[in-house]
Amino acid sequence: MEIRSTVGLTDREGLSLAYTPGVARVCEAIAAEPALTQHYTWVPNTVAVVTDGTAVLGLGDIGPAAAMPVMEGKAVLFKQFGGVDAIPICLATTDVEEIIATVARLAPSFGGINLEDISAPRCFEIEERLKGMLDIPVFHDDQHGTAVVALAALTNALRLTGRSPAGTRVVISGAGAAGVAVARILLGAGVTDLAVVDRQGVLNSRRTDLTPVKRALAQDTADRHDRSGSLADVMAGADVYIGVSGGTVPEEVVATMAPEAIIFGLANPTPEVLPEVAHRHARVVATGRSDYPNQINNVLAFPGIFRGAIDVHATAITDGMKLAAARALAGLVGDDLAEDLIVPSPFDPRVGPSVAAAVSAAARADGVARR
Amino acid sequence: MEIRSTVGLTDREGLSLAYTPGVARVCEAIAAEPALTQHYTWVPNTVAVVTDGTAVLGLGDIGPAAAMPVMEGKAVLFKQFGGVDAIPICLATTDVEEIIATVARLAPSFGGINLEDISAPRCFEIEERLKGMLDIPVFHDDQHGTAVVALAALTNALRLTGRSPAGTRVVISGAGAAGVAVARILLGAGVTDLAVVDRQGVLNSRRTDLTPVKRALAQDTADRHDRSGSLADVMAGADVYIGVSGGTVPEEVVATMAPEAIIFGLANPTPEVLPEVAHRHARVVATGRSDYPNQINNVLAFPGIFRGAIDVHATAITDGMKLAAARALAGLVGDDLAEDLIVPSPFDPRVGPSVAAAVSAAARADGVARR
Repeated sequence: MEIRSTVGLTDREGLSLAYTPGVARVCEAIAAEPALTQHYTWVPNTVAVVTDGTAVLGLGDIGPAAAMPVMEGKAVLFKQFGGVDAIPICLATTDVEEIIATVARLAPSFGGINLEDISAPRCFEIEERLKGMLDIPVFHDDQHGTAVVALAALTNALRLTGRSPAGTRVVISGAGAAGVAVARILLGAGVTDLAVVDRQGVLNSRRTDLTPVKRALAQDTADRHDRSGSLADVMAGADVYIGVSGGTVPEEVVATMAPEAIIFGLANPTPEVLPEVAHRHARVVATGRSDYPNQINNVLAFPGIFRGAIDVHATAITDGMKLAAARALAGLVGDDLAEDLIVPSPFDPRVGPSVAAAVSAAARADGVARR
Repeated sequence: MEIRSTVGLTDREGLSLAYTPGVARVCEAIAAEPALTQHYTWVPNTVAVVTDGTAVLGLGDIGPAAAMPVMEGKAVLFKQFGGVDAIPICLATTDVEEIIATVARLAPSFGGINLEDISAPRCFEIEERLKGMLDIPVFHDDQHGTAVVALAALTNALRLTGRSPAGTRVVISGAGAAGVAVARILLGAGVTDLAVVDRQGVLNSRRTDLTPVKRALAQDTADRHDRSGSLADVMAGADVYIGVSGGTVPEEVVATMAPEAIIFGLANPTPEVLPEVAHRHARVVATGRSDYPNQINNVLAFPGIFRGAIDVHATAITDGMKLAAARALAGLVGDDLAEDLIVPSPFDPRVGPSVAAAVSAAARADGVARR
């Protein structure tokens, strides 16, 4: 990756414009009218991709230096699929207060903040507090990027199997960053019968070991249908299984699901249910891998979401904008919908622009667009 | 300015290499052997251009948002003249401790730190402490970039007028970031008779109003020749005047300098001695402006200095590296040396590579090169 100047600089006059003394006039204009930053700098088109290196891919806490290749890869995708100039920022701290303070101090330099590979539950507090402090979009992609693409895929899988969100029983295994966000977006999309399972079993309010985030989620999910017990208990008769845990579901448990089941095993590189196994018991199967059909890949979401937010100079990325992104993604499949085609290809050139347009419109509807 | 990917990403295989799952192998390699960051990421070729917006050009404390155009212009010059990928970072804090902590936490993301437009005396402590904490180059350009180019110009002006550093009486007006650094580099280059003047007069140890930085400088300059009084007092008989103060020197004071005087009025946009006035009393005249000959422009130094430091993966930028940069710059003028040509043109294609080569060699000599 490299920095490229978008203006030529070939003579003394160009130099005196791009640098001193010419640039002083631009500075004075922005000092008098801060909104001119939007017109006269690269800031509005930039996103900081910020990590502390604590939850990198499936590798875990490998530190900021080793996390850089993921952030740089992400920045390349931001540019290619969204036209967004993304800067990898790997922080030499894992302290919640220090991360929040550091990102807040960096904020004048960027048009948005993409949090990345920060471990749960710290990621929830960091994102929430930064959203409260800053007037630019703050978005933890491991949560919401995954959630948006999973919802798009599920929307099409439900259509294919003739189900409605309200009439579908869903089980999510994993209550980390992705699991919590997937559960929240499904609730927002009209799913009502939802159980989230962590290593100790179904999240419900009878448990005494829950973090505040898990406790709140329990009230909105299993509590409503009084579900409890183990993963196997709630899998019996379930319509949908979404795995974001990295564990393995035994085939005899998978076999207890409802007819025409939908199975998303999103752990990388080893899905919770291998596609070969899943297909014996389910009608629609998706993974996080590029070598199987129906890849639930965040790259379908984050470039277009930030593009759409930036285009209207949004102050935040709302739940409405995430739902709109998922709807736009699902809609792109259209008449091609089939068991092995529930999400568009990342190389479908309509993806970024469609998601961006939907997100911009939702930002206006939600009152967070500044233009 | 924009981010550009240096690799193509046109199919699913490219995507799975640049992003998950392929990138995981690169992360694991760096986690095992941190020095591989140098080979597998863009980090070694990057420099953060960091400001708090407190001393921007001649505009003063205009804040981080309004400082961005200068940082962005600087980044463009870094790329064009040094091939360095520079990222503008404008911080929403002016607190010394917060700036130091923030930059230290950002360090894993960058191959070097260029501090910019941070007001004195805070800039001295921030640079010194970061140099002590980090194993990548930390360089405050307003100090050392200016100093390197001023020394190069002075070297050639002394050659033209048949003087030696040790036999030359120098007056510097201004004891901020640039004044202190110019004084220090001249002392390192063999100048011994040097007086630095601030608004209250000559810096010497009899004064009780000096900051620690100014007190130390007084001991190494005016104290040695027991100089005191006002600017006018030390200008009488001086060989060289270097203005980095932004004030104005009356013509009757300029007239008291030694024959064949050398006058650098570096304030922008209005030099301390206008060239029209200076030429009536001096043989060699330089300014900071692009519309007069002999422009003392930092762009002659910082791109090549960082290029040279990066090329050998230097852990710091030493005084030896700065002196080497100044010598290389001065040497490029060669036989073209004349009253109106004491520094090369920024567009001379030899500038960046020559400075870089000299800096790399000096880094090896000073034991700070890691390859």
